[in-house]
Amino acid sequence: MNGNQVVQGADFSFHLPTAIEFGLGKATRLGEILLPLGVKKVFIVTDKGVVSAGLLEGVTFSLQHQGIGYDIYAEVEPDPSLETIDRGAEYFLKQPYDCVVAIGGGSPIDTAKGIRVVATNGGSIGQYAGVHRVPTASPIPLVAIPTTSGTGSEVTIFGVYSDWHNQVKITVTSPYMAPTLALIDPALTIGLPSKMSAATGIDALAHGIETYFSLGSSPASDALALQAMEVVVANLRRAVHDGSDMTARIGMSHGSLLAGMAFNNGFLGLAHAIGSALSGHCHVAHGVAIGLLLPHVVAFNTPVCPEKAAKLAVLMGAQKKAAEGVAQLVWEIGLPTRMREVNVKEEKLVDIARDSFKSGMMKFNPRKPTEQEVLELLQRAF
Amino acid sequence: MNGNQVVQGADFSFHLPTAIEFGLGKATRLGEILLPLGVKKVFIVTDKGVVSAGLLEGVTFSLQHQGIGYDIYAEVEPDPSLETIDRGAEYFLKQPYDCVVAIGGGSPIDTAKGIRVVATNGGSIGQYAGVHRVPTASPIPLVAIPTTSGTGSEVTIFGVYSDWHNQVKITVTSPYMAPTLALIDPALTIGLPSKMSAATGIDALAHGIETYFSLGSSPASDALALQAMEVVVANLRRAVHDGSDMTARIGMSHGSLLAGMAFNNGFLGLAHAIGSALSGHCHVAHGVAIGLLLPHVVAFNTPVCPEKAAKLAVLMGAQKKAAEGVAQLVWEIGLPTRMREVNVKEEKLVDIARDSFKSGMMKFNPRKPTEQEVLELLQRAF
Repeated sequence: MNGNQVVQGADFSFHLPTAIEFGLGKATRLGEILLPLGVKKVFIVTDKGVVSAGLLEGVTFSLQHQGIGYDIYAEVEPDPSLETIDRGAEYFLKQPYDCVVAIGGGSPIDTAKGIRVVATNGGSIGQYAGVHRVPTASPIPLVAIPTTSGTGSEVTIFGVYSDWHNQVKITVTSPYMAPTLALIDPALTIGLPSKMSAATGIDALAHGIETYFSLGSSPASDALALQAMEVVVANLRRAVHDGSDMTARIGMSHGSLLAGMAFNNGFLGLAHAIGSALSGHCHVAHGVAIGLLLPHVVAFNTPVCPEKAAKLAVLMGAQKKAAEGVAQLVWEIGLPTRMREVNVKEEKLVDIARDSFKSGMMKFNPRKPTEQEVLELLQRAF
Repeated sequence: MNGNQVVQGADFSFHLPTAIEFGLGKATRLGEILLPLGVKKVFIVTDKGVVSAGLLEGVTFSLQHQGIGYDIYAEVEPDPSLETIDRGAEYFLKQPYDCVVAIGGGSPIDTAKGIRVVATNGGSIGQYAGVHRVPTASPIPLVAIPTTSGTGSEVTIFGVYSDWHNQVKITVTSPYMAPTLALIDPALTIGLPSKMSAATGIDALAHGIETYFSLGSSPASDALALQAMEVVVANLRRAVHDGSDMTARIGMSHGSLLAGMAFNNGFLGLAHAIGSALSGHCHVAHGVAIGLLLPHVVAFNTPVCPEKAAKLAVLMGAQKKAAEGVAQLVWEIGLPTRMREVNVKEEKLVDIARDSFKSGMMKFNPRKPTEQEVLELLQRAF
């Protein structure tokens, strides 16, 4: 290895507090799972898209069937605001709810995590921003039921919220954010629109890739990240092509979960750091932003992790470089490949480059970029 | 796939309640880790071998340095008896201990798990034999510090105890058995005698292989098992050849941990089912028994899992069949390759074959053997 290559230390931590139950139809067994825990009344956190897609029905039927009450808080918006969390906690405390159930993509799950923290510890979610700032564990069980295959939020200790007043995103990182149980039912992702499958699927792939390259990676996160990348690459095209291909859907649910388990312990890198700033400045959807950036980030990191990049290239089925394999996949699944296609203004790039450095993920990227290097990367992606 | 091949269902569970801290010298930071938890007095569970090897010193020094008191229960014998657990719990309850620390191989760690269960739930460890029979979680933190690389007990929900009165081994399986924290310090395995490295190392490999082939396997356990097998195969010969090769030691600590994480969720199979009966009848050390059986079990399972067997063969670096690769490794690390070498009497094989079916692990083996088939396997290994 030459001096530019990254030598990873032997030290690492690994913690996955969330229990996982995975299977077709599992969501309709929620009532059976909660009954022995003595749950009487559930606070369901979701969004209007999930409600109108009819995805709540199996879950609420299963609660009714076991005589468990529930109310639905469906006010979660994309990139949920601090107010959405705090208002949810207020509602939660008004009734004797003894369980929180999140059903949806990353936004409802992150919202539910925040609601449980505020309901237990008081105050506002904003005051818990940062790492390990939540003082106490909650006695309230939280069940996360994902309806997309991408965020991995069902097994992570992170929650991301929008502070619109200060125009920033905040992240709460704490083991007390982790759901008690992730109930993963691929049936809920059947018929996810092609664009959504592509955007969430590339996010799952990016979780695998960024964790694999991360300075926080370990043999345990490597194992999960490698399997995640392999499973996503094998299934993403088919899932995008035919939203009802059950094998591909199960594969994407597996891949997204494995990637979540990995990045919960190995952390992310440059694509997510820049992506966060890009979404913040130009309101580009998270998965789309990640798809735009990922090939360029892989190319940027390849010189310092040649062995891992070579393994990624093989895994991408590419007779070429890892970055080219990733770029080709992004193109094949119909995601935008240039920032100009999604109405990013070129004059914004300087601000995006600067604000990427506000992300906590930057420090795990194996190659430290300068602000100028991030700007050049953005120009290549423009 | 033809009808004999195993089609694995999409359903699975995954839970890893134990937090993991891995690193050289980590054991000497025990005091720093326990202090913020408010721990005042620690009950250390270990055995005389660990004490006489001086492996306690860094741990006890670190407790003293933080003003944390401790007593040492060093009465753990190999294949610990029910009485050893119950007596330990009695000692524990006599003083205001607020933490249990296990340091050693599988026996002290299993003993500590049992002591915590009995101290919390009362009675005798024997009454909790079976699956999910422990009624309540313990508020007492349990830290497991392995001094070998093989059992994986530091991250599992299992404990195995010897009921000498009834001449059987009992297994307690419960999430409340899982240590709170696994503190894995490869420095403690430096200088492990060659025979012990070989026996515990082949056990780690068997955990990887049996989990990979298990009917309870999932994409998550596969990921961990594959990485475990790869890391063990890459390091075991060197660790056996030179007990102070630090790189090999770190590798074996990694591999053993990954295998433990895997089998905690994917379960084991035929080699462990027969191995348990073999050890019970003929007092063959666990790792030695596993080394004797593993090649034959891999050969037996290969026809029903041809793809996984092919992947294992590649991983073993064998231009040949998986079973031959495993047999060669067992031979290269100097373990006995025939049962007659370890004083097993041929007339015992019938009893061993019969008693293999008492093991809960039998049902996870991908190919269901008859008693006659197990007997034939034992004859081949004789």
